[in-house]
Amino acid sequence: MKYELHYWPGIPGRGEFVRLALEEGGCSYVDVARERGTSEMFRLMEGEGTPHPAFAPPFLKAGRLVIGQTANILMYLGPRHGLAPAADAGRLWTHQLQLTLADFLVEIHDTHHPIGSGLYYEEQKKEAKRRAADFLAHRLPKYLGYFEGLLERSGGGYLGGRRLSYADLSLFHVVSGLRYAFPKAMARLERRQPGIVALHERVGARPRVVAFLASDRHTPFNQHGIFRHYPEFDGK
Amino acid sequence: MKYELHYWPGIPGRGEFVRLALEEGGCSYVDVARERGTSEMFRLMEGEGTPHPAFAPPFLKAGRLVIGQTANILMYLGPRHGLAPAADAGRLWTHQLQLTLADFLVEIHDTHHPIGSGLYYEEQKKEAKRRAADFLAHRLPKYLGYFEGLLERSGGGYLGGRRLSYADLSLFHVVSGLRYAFPKAMARLERRQPGIVALHERVGARPRVVAFLASDRHTPFNQHGIFRHYPEFDGK
Repeated sequence: MKYELHYWPGIPGRGEFVRLALEEGGCSYVDVARERGTSEMFRLMEGEGTPHPAFAPPFLKAGRLVIGQTANILMYLGPRHGLAPAADAGRLWTHQLQLTLADFLVEIHDTHHPIGSGLYYEEQKKEAKRRAADFLAHRLPKYLGYFEGLLERSGGGYLGGRRLSYADLSLFHVVSGLRYAFPKAMARLERRQPGIVALHERVGARPRVVAFLASDRHTPFNQHGIFRHYPEFDGK
Repeated sequence: MKYELHYWPGIPGRGEFVRLALEEGGCSYVDVARERGTSEMFRLMEGEGTPHPAFAPPFLKAGRLVIGQTANILMYLGPRHGLAPAADAGRLWTHQLQLTLADFLVEIHDTHHPIGSGLYYEEQKKEAKRRAADFLAHRLPKYLGYFEGLLERSGGGYLGGRRLSYADLSLFHVVSGLRYAFPKAMARLERRQPGIVALHERVGARPRVVAFLASDRHTPFNQHGIFRHYPEFDGK
């Protein structure tokens, strides 16, 4: 089956978590809005003929199914493409990790948009500076410490042990994004997170991930996405 | 099996979504921290013996499984207790709805905590007023309009059609919370959302929901939870 991914072109955003899974899973897919514009995406979201319209992109068309919400898409793809454990307990745990990464992602996004996602950064710059400071002081170390602790427990180099799951791909992308957004803060914090650093290297060295990141199917981080670099946030 | 729910006592919070499902599903459960204090909750989150510690409550102990993340818990309970469709497509859709409600909930919470969850409301009152205004003007109508549209399409009175799912229970609770937090804004907006109003009445009249809300297992909304009433946000 050839999947259709629908997501905003021009930013990695939440679509990149799905792309990484599709690529590592060796799936055949079309990134519809990148290749043909956004009209099909809007039709699927707003059209009368869509029984299950998504609130927002990304969503994945898999045959007749249209699946929304990043974590839900990954849960669907995981067991079909070797990116999630076979047993129920492992699948629930992998999904739980993904949902915690989704919570983390909202907090990362809101460092530059604490007042409203419909306003420009420049309209909420003062509030953003305060939120980013709180994030770097409290939330970022808390989330990183949590995932570091899990990697210590797992012992196998991936969150679930010796086998990669879609949650590892997502953690890899979050760490890449955090390094882009907060290079100084991350350089400082990573000294205490050897497991996360090793996971990032391990995932980033997988041949399909390497090939994807070098391809034009990948969108580099930029100042319009979830991860943005504002030097004024990053401290000393 | 007797489930163990672990959640902060004193607030309805995210625990209430799980309680509503356990109650409507006719499940046997202990609300551990309410009955015996929070020490077991912390031991399960932080203890060396926990292979899969949750980042935050709520989590549910189901035999040897410990399941975290509200939507993940509901996805586990749904098909076991008649609160989710039997077919895969329906289950994915129900979960997608729950994840969208989870996103909605973060935005509701952040109206009073736009800068940091570790700070008091009083320390971010000015920013909160601005965020709440943006939420009431843009995000609240957008989310309500989305769910109203789904209820129109479903035609059966519940989000999935004629049969109640855990997502309906959660939408019921969100609407109750919004009425507590923003009574004036909701009275105004609800005129355009007859499907949501009808769903709220329908769920609120189910015998097990009625019995739960009248019991001491239920925690009323208060000024420490996700839904808080600050009259200064609610407009004219």
